Amino acid sequence: MSEKIIIGIAGLGTVGSGLVEMLQKNREDILRRSGREFVIKAVAVHNLNKKRDLPEGVILTGNPLDLASDPDIQVVVELMGGTGAARELVLAAMQNGKSVVTANKALLAEYGKEIFALAREKNVSLGYEASSAGAIPVIETLRDSMAGNHITSVMGILNGTSNYILSEMNSKGSSFADALADAQSLGLAEADPTLDIDGGDAAHKLVLLIRLAWGVHFDYDKLVIRGIRDISRLDVQFARDFGYRVKLIGQAREEDGVIEAGVFPALVHKSMLLARVNGAYNAVRIEGNAVGSLFLHGLGAGSRPTASAVLGDLMAVARRSVINTCEANTGYVEDLGDAAILPADDAVFRWYVRTTVRDTPGVLRDIAAAFAAEGISFAQIIQKAADEDDRVSLVLMTHEAPGRAIKAAGKKLLDDGTLLAPHVAYRILGGIGNETEGS
Amino acid sequence: MSEKIIIGIAGLGTVGSGLVEMLQKNREDILRRSGREFVIKAVAVHNLNKKRDLPEGVILTGNPLDLASDPDIQVVVELMGGTGAARELVLAAMQNGKSVVTANKALLAEYGKEIFALAREKNVSLGYEASSAGAIPVIETLRDSMAGNHITSVMGILNGTSNYILSEMNSKGSSFADALADAQSLGLAEADPTLDIDGGDAAHKLVLLIRLAWGVHFDYDKLVIRGIRDISRLDVQFARDFGYRVKLIGQAREEDGVIEAGVFPALVHKSMLLARVNGAYNAVRIEGNAVGSLFLHGLGAGSRPTASAVLGDLMAVARRSVINTCEANTGYVEDLGDAAILPADDAVFRWYVRTTVRDTPGVLRDIAAAFAAEGISFAQIIQKAADEDDRVSLVLMTHEAPGRAIKAAGKKLLDDGTLLAPHVAYRILGGIGNETEGS
Repeated sequence: MSEKIIIGIAGLGTVGSGLVEMLQKNREDILRRSGREFVIKAVAVHNLNKKRDLPEGVILTGNPLDLASDPDIQVVVELMGGTGAARELVLAAMQNGKSVVTANKALLAEYGKEIFALAREKNVSLGYEASSAGAIPVIETLRDSMAGNHITSVMGILNGTSNYILSEMNSKGSSFADALADAQSLGLAEADPTLDIDGGDAAHKLVLLIRLAWGVHFDYDKLVIRGIRDISRLDVQFARDFGYRVKLIGQAREEDGVIEAGVFPALVHKSMLLARVNGAYNAVRIEGNAVGSLFLHGLGAGSRPTASAVLGDLMAVARRSVINTCEANTGYVEDLGDAAILPADDAVFRWYVRTTVRDTPGVLRDIAAAFAAEGISFAQIIQKAADEDDRVSLVLMTHEAPGRAIKAAGKKLLDDGTLLAPHVAYRILGGIGNETEGS
Repeated sequence: MSEKIIIGIAGLGTVGSGLVEMLQKNREDILRRSGREFVIKAVAVHNLNKKRDLPEGVILTGNPLDLASDPDIQVVVELMGGTGAARELVLAAMQNGKSVVTANKALLAEYGKEIFALAREKNVSLGYEASSAGAIPVIETLRDSMAGNHITSVMGILNGTSNYILSEMNSKGSSFADALADAQSLGLAEADPTLDIDGGDAAHKLVLLIRLAWGVHFDYDKLVIRGIRDISRLDVQFARDFGYRVKLIGQAREEDGVIEAGVFPALVHKSMLLARVNGAYNAVRIEGNAVGSLFLHGLGAGSRPTASAVLGDLMAVARRSVINTCEANTGYVEDLGDAAILPADDAVFRWYVRTTVRDTPGVLRDIAAAFAAEGISFAQIIQKAADEDDRVSLVLMTHEAPGRAIKAAGKKLLDDGTLLAPHVAYRILGGIGNETEGS
């Protein structure tokens, strides 16, 4: 009745420890649901001398490749992170006919083409639910439940650290620096927070979601990424005045086979569920031509939530191991081609544009003229009181326009001296006509 | 390369028509994702004379059982509804070794034991994602992504019609009767809305979710169900004053192997995402010991959204057809047993209790004494101005207490003349200590 599945785990950090804990704690539930007992044969760790809390008999090794070469091990769980040793391990395991479960978004975003091709060649399963938005079942939803849809849009809050920082700036009026320090003291941000706050982590996840939504490889290097490092309290406050929250969004849309994608801070209208995602939570909103819109919300990181996704994959791989369909890896039957990509500046959005101008007659006329020349019209304008230097913040909310038009109008106004500093522009999501839409 | 899957569809109403439409419209996406072409061989309809928009060559029949006996048909899609002919069809199809996809919540809630047992005996796949919360991938999430969790709670807004009515009562101050008439004129409610507004539909779905979450059959007849027919504008308004929205909730919790479940109107604190579910949308919130909380939101009914879930199932069944694991049906290896059920009155909640009393000294003292005698303490009390008859509404928000204690205190106060009318009580979800929890 209870078939044994022998696994090897590489990496015993936050996620690895969570996996070991949950495999023991939920042993009975797992057995009832899968009929399998998952036995950890070996664990690869960096520091062999550190005391570990492991079941009796588990072999510790300093060399991850030992897991790939052990003939007993059926599934290798890669939780080391990075794209060096992790890549070597995943490729070696597959070469030896082993299935792999990984939480490594960087690896699959940057080397996905190579890895999925090898999985196909060797007919092994690759589980990676944990690699995008942690515990949120977005991989499975795109691949399975929405398989009969033509997907038109995927957008989400894909990085909990930056969402925590923005939530603090919004609710407490904190500066970016203070909110970051706060996140670091709570262990929500690394000492070097670059990957989180500059958008790289969200971008890795977005590349994985694009692959599942449209069956194409979108080169990570071609993704336009803008983080939250330069978000000012002023913009967070102006956004609130208009009924919006500033969020770091990863978004991709498809039209006529062309993909437009980016990671950027945006103003999200408070009527959208995405605006209600607080603290370290993640959320993804998917639109398909049959499903309408789906919104999925949960913990995007952390020991147990990520282990939950890894466990779900392990159980699915065990179930699938009889057949090892590659279809289950990418969600597509054939090898994937490269994405046709829309240049980022061609993407059409509504825009929040904050300008710094002198408080004199004629300024608004000049600004309106420069924007009109680029075909941009305004939905709303607010002007804030002048400061001591007689400079005022003039905020414009535009109707739909391509990014390049906003850039061109801003540059012209800076060049001719109307703007006293470069303009600040953010995309706007929601808020016109969809207040009652529900998500 | 493109294997043909021959299907038969029973029922060509809203969902059946949506399925036929999406199979044609998304043919290319479906082919890329599954490598299979789904060919409709026959459709069973009630009225053979009605003009239908079907692909050329599709056979129309008035007898659904023709689909079960046709040797070419591999998968029968049951979209007739009801528990009579639909049950016969599903059983006959399985007897003949065919896999089944259904959107029929009543059938699986009331006859699930019989149907899942036969699927197991005949080793056929049963897809039913569409039967609970329409397009929301809640079946798959409970069965697959959360498979490594011990699940502790499932709650949701499972009926779009009643949620629309409650949303209207909340946002416009409508009466129940007016909001219902409005829903009927928009086609969101049937002429006979009983199943929606009295909670039966939500209860059917809840039984399916309990089966997946804990691997037990919970008899539909044993579920305590309370609908929204008697919700007054007054209670909706008082709830708002306290920061809550009134929602029809289906909830199940597990503790020490005992399940407590019910369908009831509840006050949901506005900080919870469930409170933000508006109009005809559905949402489900699941808690597991690894995942933390997951919140899934989408359209719970309608032609295309339901067809989306049916299509996902069809593609999964086609993929699985090689192996036909029964594990994929219920998510459990063994046959399921019956649930151990907590008596509904033993369930502990915080409560909103509205009483109607005379505006005289000593009333609050008497009420406090009666509740204290049952071990109930209050978190908040509000008293509304007296009306012309010198009657006032006194609203109590209690700390945690079992339902039977609330009932007993209310009965005592009615019997001794302190209450001028029976008290009104609703469960409270969220609002104390979890404002920052995020969902």
